[in-house]
Amino acid sequence: MKKSVILSLLFIILSFSTGWAGDETPTPISNKEAIELVQTHANYVWTLVAAILVFFMQAGFAMVEAGFTRAKNAINIMMKNLMDFSLGSLAYWAVGFGLMFGVSKTGWFGTSGFFLSDFSPDGDPWVLAFWMFQVVFAATAATIVSGAMAERTKFTAYLMYSIVVSALIYPIFGSWAWGSLFNGNGWLEGLGFIDFAGSTVVHSVGGWAALAGAIVIGPRIGKYTKEGGVKAIMGHNIPLAALGVFILWVGWFGFNPGSTTTADKSIAMIFVNTNLAAATGAVFAMLTSWVKFGKPEVGMSLNGALAGLVGITAGCANVSPTSSIIIGGVAGVLVVFSVLFFDKLKIDDPVGAISVHGVNGVWGTLAAGIFNMGGTSAKIIGIQLVGIGACFVWTFTLAFIMFKAIDILFGLRVTPEEEIQGLDFVEHGGNAYPDFEISTYTQQ
Amino acid sequence: MKKSVILSLLFIILSFSTGWAGDETPTPISNKEAIELVQTHANYVWTLVAAILVFFMQAGFAMVEAGFTRAKNAINIMMKNLMDFSLGSLAYWAVGFGLMFGVSKTGWFGTSGFFLSDFSPDGDPWVLAFWMFQVVFAATAATIVSGAMAERTKFTAYLMYSIVVSALIYPIFGSWAWGSLFNGNGWLEGLGFIDFAGSTVVHSVGGWAALAGAIVIGPRIGKYTKEGGVKAIMGHNIPLAALGVFILWVGWFGFNPGSTTTADKSIAMIFVNTNLAAATGAVFAMLTSWVKFGKPEVGMSLNGALAGLVGITAGCANVSPTSSIIIGGVAGVLVVFSVLFFDKLKIDDPVGAISVHGVNGVWGTLAAGIFNMGGTSAKIIGIQLVGIGACFVWTFTLAFIMFKAIDILFGLRVTPEEEIQGLDFVEHGGNAYPDFEISTYTQQ
Amino acid sequence: MKKSVILSLLFIILSFSTGWAGDETPTPISNKEAIELVQTHANYVWTLVAAILVFFMQAGFAMVEAGFTRAKNAINIMMKNLMDFSLGSLAYWAVGFGLMFGVSKTGWFGTSGFFLSDFSPDGDPWVLAFWMFQVVFAATAATIVSGAMAERTKFTAYLMYSIVVSALIYPIFGSWAWGSLFNGNGWLEGLGFIDFAGSTVVHSVGGWAALAGAIVIGPRIGKYTKEGGVKAIMGHNIPLAALGVFILWVGWFGFNPGSTTTADKSIAMIFVNTNLAAATGAVFAMLTSWVKFGKPEVGMSLNGALAGLVGITAGCANVSPTSSIIIGGVAGVLVVFSVLFFDKLKIDDPVGAISVHGVNGVWGTLAAGIFNMGGTSAKIIGIQLVGIGACFVWTFTLAFIMFKAIDILFGLRVTPEEEIQGLDFVEHGGNAYPDFEISTYTQQ
Repeated sequence: MKKSVILSLLFIILSFSTGWAGDETPTPISNKEAIELVQTHANYVWTLVAAILVFFMQAGFAMVEAGFTRAKNAINIMMKNLMDFSLGSLAYWAVGFGLMFGVSKTGWFGTSGFFLSDFSPDGDPWVLAFWMFQVVFAATAATIVSGAMAERTKFTAYLMYSIVVSALIYPIFGSWAWGSLFNGNGWLEGLGFIDFAGSTVVHSVGGWAALAGAIVIGPRIGKYTKEGGVKAIMGHNIPLAALGVFILWVGWFGFNPGSTTTADKSIAMIFVNTNLAAATGAVFAMLTSWVKFGKPEVGMSLNGALAGLVGITAGCANVSPTSSIIIGGVAGVLVVFSVLFFDKLKIDDPVGAISVHGVNGVWGTLAAGIFNMGGTSAKIIGIQLVGIGACFVWTFTLAFIMFKAIDILFGLRVTPEEEIQGLDFVEHGGNAYPDFEISTYTQQ
Repeated sequence: MKKSVILSLLFIILSFSTGWAGDETPTPISNKEAIELVQTHANYVWTLVAAILVFFMQAGFAMVEAGFTRAKNAINIMMKNLMDFSLGSLAYWAVGFGLMFGVSKTGWFGTSGFFLSDFSPDGDPWVLAFWMFQVVFAATAATIVSGAMAERTKFTAYLMYSIVVSALIYPIFGSWAWGSLFNGNGWLEGLGFIDFAGSTVVHSVGGWAALAGAIVIGPRIGKYTKEGGVKAIMGHNIPLAALGVFILWVGWFGFNPGSTTTADKSIAMIFVNTNLAAATGAVFAMLTSWVKFGKPEVGMSLNGALAGLVGITAGCANVSPTSSIIIGGVAGVLVVFSVLFFDKLKIDDPVGAISVHGVNGVWGTLAAGIFNMGGTSAKIIGIQLVGIGACFVWTFTLAFIMFKAIDILFGLRVTPEEEIQGLDFVEHGGNAYPDFEISTYTQQ
Repeated sequence: MKKSVILSLLFIILSFSTGWAGDETPTPISNKEAIELVQTHANYVWTLVAAILVFFMQAGFAMVEAGFTRAKNAINIMMKNLMDFSLGSLAYWAVGFGLMFGVSKTGWFGTSGFFLSDFSPDGDPWVLAFWMFQVVFAATAATIVSGAMAERTKFTAYLMYSIVVSALIYPIFGSWAWGSLFNGNGWLEGLGFIDFAGSTVVHSVGGWAALAGAIVIGPRIGKYTKEGGVKAIMGHNIPLAALGVFILWVGWFGFNPGSTTTADKSIAMIFVNTNLAAATGAVFAMLTSWVKFGKPEVGMSLNGALAGLVGITAGCANVSPTSSIIIGGVAGVLVVFSVLFFDKLKIDDPVGAISVHGVNGVWGTLAAGIFNMGGTSAKIIGIQLVGIGACFVWTFTLAFIMFKAIDILFGLRVTPEEEIQGLDFVEHGGNAYPDFEISTYTQQ
């Protein structure tokens, strides 16, 4: 394909004058078809570039999770993030995509399109572009769980639940809210549920699965003292975590505006909303931590940006920039109180995933109804609450059963000795930083 | 929006045949309008993708600044970079954008468009795409200052000056050179000042504000000995700094070609010019450091790439690729001598921001006149010098007054004890690397 | 260019109605030309965005190589990666592009287009877009070699061979397979050789040059014991290496689909194939390492993803998604056995570059013939083998001679004392991590 400038330009011109226009002399009809084709090409480019950005979020999640946890588990976290995307891609290819977007007679799940089987070489390749955009979303849901269960989960158990989330839990809920690709609508979509890019569909699913996992597996050794105190277990690499947040912010510019899957003018407002909510999330989380702890805390501020991003995900296409600022600001305050709340319940979530994704997924979905530019009503809010509730019931229940089953059948958690030694050596026979002197802090 | 392949294609086809063409039977006129709309969509996608790339530069700046400074201040640097973009976004939304691109009767600043107030849901969303592209530029100017004042600035003082730069100093100068969005031109633009993507508007503004800040705050403890010697304070993580430079190089492919805000053929030459200048900047800075110090030095080489990028920013659209090589080469030599020069003046700039952005911003702006493909003249050079001079006078004066005012009213610098202990603990109650043994080097 | 919304929209409309359509009243002919121009603009945007992604791979390679090697050589690796792209850009601008895509009378190399000399300001700027996409490929080939020769190569020797690879070895082979830009075809292309995005042209060239280099320079001190044992020299920063792999995966979404250099529907399948092969590569390398070593090993798993990506590069546009899964799976198994094989031969390749790029480049090129959607035949496989063989003979021979010549004339390797001390101090007078206590591990 790396042919000549002239040849390739000639080729394009020939394509227009023959294949495209169907005739050597262009007519208004043939031109109209050619215009539609160029627009379609723009849609492909935009959707697939957005997919790249969302894929990049995997790197962001890996850096955030590693940065916020201890050096002795860094390899394990890299392996988890690599594998939830890799196995998740295969699981979503084989099963998930069909359940989520296949032909659905009931509105509860699809029953076709497994193994990308409805695609034929001479069929419409849009299904492939669409799959590519969806697979990176599916992997996001699975990755969110990883952070809440970090530093104590068996690697085999991780691989199992990661596949279940990507193949079943996420796609089935997704089919309710985003409907079938081939016919009809999911039942939540049919009600008028608003969740443009997935505050509920992606983030709350991830967050509630994370909640179930954190409850079933229990807190890390030493996190909560017998006297009821909470011990901060500091992350080992804050610049890495911050880099992860910047990468996630970048990726969200694919996540939200890319959800148009169309190159049109509507993406501009979605960009602005996404950015403003992230910014106010960071600012308000920083201010809240300042008031609560006396100093502007870096972990809370970084999570505040993510909370703002989760918060604007549902409503990014139907609220105004000014509303985005309010939504992001509330998310930033909420994430700090939520982290403290779960610590009070002794639910140990090393990176704050439940607060960032679960709680703010709820807030974002509500906010999409409250700040709807076309006006709001008790009915709109009610439908949003139905979706929020359905997500919690479905995800938390299934995830809880799944984690319990894995625990009973295969074991979910490493032994206390292994946890103290660190998962890198125990599970992977490695050492993330062999050239550096590791302080005794890590050993406890 | 994640609907059916078929439905969405149908929708697009319907859009063309109804909304777009205004009629079921296409006519040359309706087709022409449809063509313009597709081009507009391409402009949105290109401008907003470029905005993402420029946003990513925030991560680059954060990694460069952290990598080139000490471990004990890494959290502080992450917080500064997160906050200058977050607060900067809000400041630019509320005030800066209106001053820079609002209706301007005088050519000296705009007086409308505050809080994106001229945007209405049914208005033209281009203003939102344009704002998104501009806000990432505004944040760049503020971030540049951060590096020059690293490791000794109070966090509260940082937040204050960061807002002032994004809301006032940068936008007002910007309005002179890049004019109003709604009517008329800025006075510098009216003269014919050439600064396509901001060697002066962004980088020199950042660089001269950095110079004022570095002078007012004074050097870090131990940097300059009483005998007149200069002590190298080594950066704590060179791979992180190098990653930052690669990210900035990536981002510059949005910064320069994205400044077309149009998807057209002109972006190709801008890409090539940007790349060649960065490459020669790195090579010539390396060679210069080799000659001066006997070894090819990594900090200088990395800054050489950035110097080349700053140097080509003004002229990237109006000089030839061959000229870009010369411009980048000169920038690479210049940055090394400039760093040594400011060290002789005992102006302590931990990352070389003044030399990279201030000095090479001047060089790039001059070079845009000298190597102009349409020919040069004493008049063209003179106008470039007027712009360069106006930028220095405006920015340095205002920034100097601002920093002095902050120093007197709130205090600009931490105490010597706090500086030695490190800003991470003092300002944020944290430790960027709690699992690693930190050498005594950091303690001095 | 940061002018008014209204003005710029007016400009576009005017362009259509005057410059573009050549007439104020649009006709089917003028509209057809305008449509082609918009498609051309989309091609520019897509090709250049893809070039950015491939450029970003430089950061990925730098992080992978640094992460997989020791802390004492991290600065050296950053300098090598910065310089092979910077010097490579200049070498490819001056010589390489002309050899690869210039007018070729023989099908063996081009003889025009040096220094981008066929470009004139009023000529077709496509050559610049095309050059930008090609230069990032050329730099990839050179970077691959870097990893295999890490931790013991003189910096000056590195600069020399890097220029030779970018200016001569890569472009001449490239001209055989990807033909001339201005006329005719390369001889391999003429035979019908399939290598869409460069499993052979880029990766095997890099891999076989790496093999020659690793043989000529010999293993690192301590890697192979006298008793025939292999000592694992662990990489110093696994999260950095993993970040590098994620970045490379991102970059490959430019590398493969961008090789269309056209914004059309065909990119969708290329995306899906690229992603599925990477995913199965990672999964199967992990499983293979698990079986062989008893634990899922992180280095192998990360290299498995890269092996899958290299494996799908040749056939990404002419094999099905299902075939991609097979191709990636085989690549993941292959890379583990290949790494063990070269260790048995005592060919020390610190990052596994020969196995990832050389061996899997061969596999990918074969697979492009075997799994060809249009059917396969002994002839197709035969031609693929001719290309594979030609690449090995050309690249290994020339690279071997080059490295021997550099060794004799200038010295290829540092002294044992320098190697033990580390290249950062010896070659660059620096220390990548001055604030951290480095363990004695590094010293041996």
